[in-house]
Amino acid sequence: MVKSNLIELKINKDRIKKNIENLGQIGLSKQGGINRSLASKADIESRNWIKTYWQQNFNISVTTDAAANLWGEYPYSTNKSLKPLIIGSHNDSVPEGGKYDGALGVLLATEAFQTMVEKQIKLKHPLKLISLTGEEPNPYQISTLGSKIISGVVDKKYLAKFKNIETGEPLATAIDRLGGNFKNLESARWLDNDFTAFIECHIEQGRRLFDSGDPVAVVKKITGIYRELVVIDGEANHAGTTDLFHRKDALLSLSWLNVKLREYLQSLESNEPVVGTIGFAEIEPNAANIIPGRVRFNVDLRSGDWGLVEEAISYLGKLFTNLEKIGLKVTRNVILNQKPVDLNAKIIQTFSNTIAADSNLNLKVFTSMAGHDAANMAHIGRSGMLFVKSIDGKSHCKEEYSKIEDIEVAGNVLLQTILDLDRELD
Amino acid sequence: MVKSNLIELKINKDRIKKNIENLGQIGLSKQGGINRSLASKADIESRNWIKTYWQQNFNISVTTDAAANLWGEYPYSTNKSLKPLIIGSHNDSVPEGGKYDGALGVLLATEAFQTMVEKQIKLKHPLKLISLTGEEPNPYQISTLGSKIISGVVDKKYLAKFKNIETGEPLATAIDRLGGNFKNLESARWLDNDFTAFIECHIEQGRRLFDSGDPVAVVKKITGIYRELVVIDGEANHAGTTDLFHRKDALLSLSWLNVKLREYLQSLESNEPVVGTIGFAEIEPNAANIIPGRVRFNVDLRSGDWGLVEEAISYLGKLFTNLEKIGLKVTRNVILNQKPVDLNAKIIQTFSNTIAADSNLNLKVFTSMAGHDAANMAHIGRSGMLFVKSIDGKSHCKEEYSKIEDIEVAGNVLLQTILDLDRELD
Repeated sequence: MVKSNLIELKINKDRIKKNIENLGQIGLSKQGGINRSLASKADIESRNWIKTYWQQNFNISVTTDAAANLWGEYPYSTNKSLKPLIIGSHNDSVPEGGKYDGALGVLLATEAFQTMVEKQIKLKHPLKLISLTGEEPNPYQISTLGSKIISGVVDKKYLAKFKNIETGEPLATAIDRLGGNFKNLESARWLDNDFTAFIECHIEQGRRLFDSGDPVAVVKKITGIYRELVVIDGEANHAGTTDLFHRKDALLSLSWLNVKLREYLQSLESNEPVVGTIGFAEIEPNAANIIPGRVRFNVDLRSGDWGLVEEAISYLGKLFTNLEKIGLKVTRNVILNQKPVDLNAKIIQTFSNTIAADSNLNLKVFTSMAGHDAANMAHIGRSGMLFVKSIDGKSHCKEEYSKIEDIEVAGNVLLQTILDLDRELD
Repeated sequence: MVKSNLIELKINKDRIKKNIENLGQIGLSKQGGINRSLASKADIESRNWIKTYWQQNFNISVTTDAAANLWGEYPYSTNKSLKPLIIGSHNDSVPEGGKYDGALGVLLATEAFQTMVEKQIKLKHPLKLISLTGEEPNPYQISTLGSKIISGVVDKKYLAKFKNIETGEPLATAIDRLGGNFKNLESARWLDNDFTAFIECHIEQGRRLFDSGDPVAVVKKITGIYRELVVIDGEANHAGTTDLFHRKDALLSLSWLNVKLREYLQSLESNEPVVGTIGFAEIEPNAANIIPGRVRFNVDLRSGDWGLVEEAISYLGKLFTNLEKIGLKVTRNVILNQKPVDLNAKIIQTFSNTIAADSNLNLKVFTSMAGHDAANMAHIGRSGMLFVKSIDGKSHCKEEYSKIEDIEVAGNVLLQTILDLDRELD
């Protein structure tokens, strides 16, 4: 299917299928979910699986950087002085997650790599496989850890304070346990533009591809995320003796805000999706016969169009002002304020050309509504992503599933894109 | 002021003021709240205070029934074969509660009693002081305990399973610790119509008297309370990748329900207040970046007009049906379904006559929106209540306060009503 160096290259569908199944046994619970949280036993076991697979099948030495990211180097590169192409994703999972989120990106990179190794395809650039450390939310309370260290979003001093909230283990100790080197963490940091391109394949997690029926999409940007931690103070009072017109009900205030915010977001017209969620809320005193006196909650707003997020923030401000006017006290703290990150135009173009050249495929290019390692990598160099269809849009659950036919398409698009980027970039 | 047996009787304002202050030292926290939860050290201390006061001032022996209710018997009754009048309230409190809820009723009964003892007023009927056990919500998870046992609302078999959720102590052990006798609990049970009248004074807890400026009100009934424990199951999903039109957000469903219910209740027109509250809610998984998949919450509806509660239940049913239509799963469990309890017409009339006879007072007669021991007592005999103004409508908090001038009015109305009921009833 894919033509390069006069050899027709195609990934091996059966092999990647088997690899997904095998890696998907690690951390598998009785309920059928995957549990490979950062620095857990299953995280270590999955790292060993990947390491062993790369060593045995490619006859290469696998290295672990100071951030405990795993690296494997392609053996048939002709110009070691060029800056490398990097392909991969992460091997960890959320609690009771699925077999695809993270693992599929590592295994698609591995499969493309293996296909080229088998034919001893010569590449100009060095090519590196990567399996990144701790991408998912975890008890150490930091996500996309490996790529944050690589890109300098965080440093040793900042990370020194992080601890596992369940066990108390310092993050530094966990990184060392995984084969990293916290003391020498700076050595994992890459300089700006010190790689030619970083490419990550990942399941979509949403349902845009499922609804359109397309197997893959090119990611043009990573959504902006704005998050507040809000406290509304009303007045705890007797649920019987306090009449409706003398209440300062904090949960009712949150309820009204939640409904109004949703109505507002649904009314916005835009090519970019915009979403808002109150996912966390704690009520005080939280008793059936007492009017809630206080709620503490998060509001999460996301869009690839930061202007829309800013409009929604402004609307939110009006809602809070209305609550203050009727006697509630509102305390707002912005805890996340990440603008959308554009992925690299050249990578988007190359992916797009590959897809457009296949008459069986429609070209879909859209924004990722979830955060990814690729967003951190974009801060220091060319970064790109390819999404694979999630059946029913599911992710972060045991029902998460991508069809092998769609995975095969993604593998071949990735393979062709690596070859094209290798050829077209210096 | 009050004329009876040719002697002008008046309660002693300064004495009851001092008693409120003294009893209000027991269980007083640094924050200024009262902590006399059932079977706590301060509960026991307050019982001892009451016991000692009754013994020393009235020269009577104080008895403790099997439910640990305290009883004191009036010494100047002429016809021991008549069924007794009972006056009192409870001595326990909510955590960080006030000095008046419960204690004021015990001390007003004590003051009226003391005023009559001083003048050696002869009554036809036996008259009993009572301080009831465990009226407030407490860690043993049963409220109005003393009056429930007296009236047979609960029995030994039912209570045998109750335990303190914090310490694990069985309720039976706690009752015995307080001087009760769990093994012989039936002995605390009163037969139907085995007393002439039960009369309880209590702070209003609401703000109707505060708003009207009147010191006291006659209670005509105790509100009906309907309570459900509801579970809404939606779908936990990614807060970024799940578009607004494919969400089954359990917290948003609760929010919508809360807002609609409030709008509905405010639209009802009635002479009886009707209130509804969602005071307790727990969200799963409760994380900022995950759409809530499940909420568990209480809906509490109250009115003296049960027809209104039934209308609200029916409206609630429609709201739940709407949620089910858009794919949420709703599981409802009725956990409280207490119809309003009418208090005794003769007692209401006697209280009203006393108030109407005083040209300084306006007659207020209304429904109690909180539950009280008097509701249990009404199941087995004549039961009546008098409310005293709560400043700002506050209760169950350290700011709870009633003015001594209002308390004085209540004491004199209570005293006159006892004398009138004694004369008018057999």
